[in-house]
Amino acid sequence: MKEKLTIVKVGGAVVEDEAQLAQLLKDFSAIEGKKVLIHGGGRRATQTAAQLGLESKMVNGRRITDADMLTVVTMVYGGLVNKNLVARLQANGVNALGLTGADIDVIRSHRRPPVTYTAPASEPVTIDYGFVGDVDRVDDAMLARIVNAGITPVMAPLTHDGQGNILNTNADTIASETAKALASHFDVTLIFSFEKKGVLRQPDDDDSVIPVITRADFMKYKADGTISGGMLPKIENALSAIDAGVSRVIITLASAIDGSQGTVITTDNEDKRILKTIG
Amino acid sequence: MKEKLTIVKVGGAVVEDEAQLAQLLKDFSAIEGKKVLIHGGGRRATQTAAQLGLESKMVNGRRITDADMLTVVTMVYGGLVNKNLVARLQANGVNALGLTGADIDVIRSHRRPPVTYTAPASEPVTIDYGFVGDVDRVDDAMLARIVNAGITPVMAPLTHDGQGNILNTNADTIASETAKALASHFDVTLIFSFEKKGVLRQPDDDDSVIPVITRADFMKYKADGTISGGMLPKIENALSAIDAGVSRVIITLASAIDGSQGTVITTDNEDKRILKTIG
Repeated sequence: MKEKLTIVKVGGAVVEDEAQLAQLLKDFSAIEGKKVLIHGGGRRATQTAAQLGLESKMVNGRRITDADMLTVVTMVYGGLVNKNLVARLQANGVNALGLTGADIDVIRSHRRPPVTYTAPASEPVTIDYGFVGDVDRVDDAMLARIVNAGITPVMAPLTHDGQGNILNTNADTIASETAKALASHFDVTLIFSFEKKGVLRQPDDDDSVIPVITRADFMKYKADGTISGGMLPKIENALSAIDAGVSRVIITLASAIDGSQGTVITTDNEDKRILKTIG
Repeated sequence: MKEKLTIVKVGGAVVEDEAQLAQLLKDFSAIEGKKVLIHGGGRRATQTAAQLGLESKMVNGRRITDADMLTVVTMVYGGLVNKNLVARLQANGVNALGLTGADIDVIRSHRRPPVTYTAPASEPVTIDYGFVGDVDRVDDAMLARIVNAGITPVMAPLTHDGQGNILNTNADTIASETAKALASHFDVTLIFSFEKKGVLRQPDDDDSVIPVITRADFMKYKADGTISGGMLPKIENALSAIDAGVSRVIITLASAIDGSQGTVITTDNEDKRILKTIG
């Protein structure tokens, strides 16, 4: 039986609020066994960019990363956010190691080519996201070696193309690609922390959390409209991680990364009461 | 006999000039065997600080690091400079790993208390350097393990205090403390790259490089005024590394980090023609 590994992805909003961050670091430090932290930092990047007189342009929730914006995200994600998380985890007794994809070549990517979108009844629009990387491969053997040495990787949303260029890469993607790659080495639980208690049955009712979603459930919820909009790609992403061998994906509040709450996305065959067996 | 390890320290001026940087990375990549790169980045930090409306205050060549300046150096040294060096070394086939002292707890420091200077015939002046760290210990076993795994550490001039705080630490100090710590594991050559060809006999004559300086030579050159000013602490620092077991320290141009040129600082007993045996 494989050893357990918990991978937690935290977004920029949590990292940038001192009270939430302190709680998150305490909760993350309390997770038993091997673990990995993956962080965003977009709000802080937007703030620093503005201080430097740069405007942040977002398309479909993704940052357009020109050369100046690449400088900002390399500073903010790779330096400011990453190194402060590492130092604070060290103070909590977690032997953290900050990594971008370039470090020990752990995540190789290629620059995304311009993408053309065609909406009904309008001209096609071509978007160049700039220095944005789509992941080619995660070095699972190297990451497993680090984790097995008792070290906790803290991964910034930056990768590299192997030709000397840092590329900006979505933190959710880093989290799911890392989880998939490590699934051959560990029994992986992937936790996406989030501003809601989980996937909600009624968007306006914070307590209508759906506790477990299998692929069959998802098809049903998608067909009847219970799950829609931005939640669709999140769950599709989670199901693809499950298909690639990740044991379970949990979507939960940043204050509930012990896996005791939130929505568990799991395989059709697994016990739906899995929630009671983790955390 | 211990295996050779080359530790190269490069300053901010080299890192920030594209032509010099490209050459340096090529030369560093060509160094055979195990190696470590330590970088500065002060000029870029000063530039980024200015863009953010912050004035850089230096006392005795050291940066006063208040909370805002700590943010800047954490971004610039830990993110921008470090991650670009790592990505570019990867492109050259060097398996680089960017580290601050907080990562895997490799360099622990304490915040420097305010220092009082008393100059003749003037009032004492107390300087608080702010978030500046004086090194307490380098984890030589962990660094040796990384180096022995075929990984090249790329070290930013940042340390941590073990209580969650990043501290700004002089890159020359990081280099000499790292060299001393690794001297029990390796036959260490420490190379300080620099804007001159080496230690000069006549400050105005770039070709008056003193090829070898032993402690006895240093005492003589100091007494007769050949070596003075800012070069004194550099050589005292080098001799203290030698006393702590570092095999040799070379002060040379950034374009000559193969050790074939420059000034070698070595023990009294070593062959003075050591220059021919390295590089």
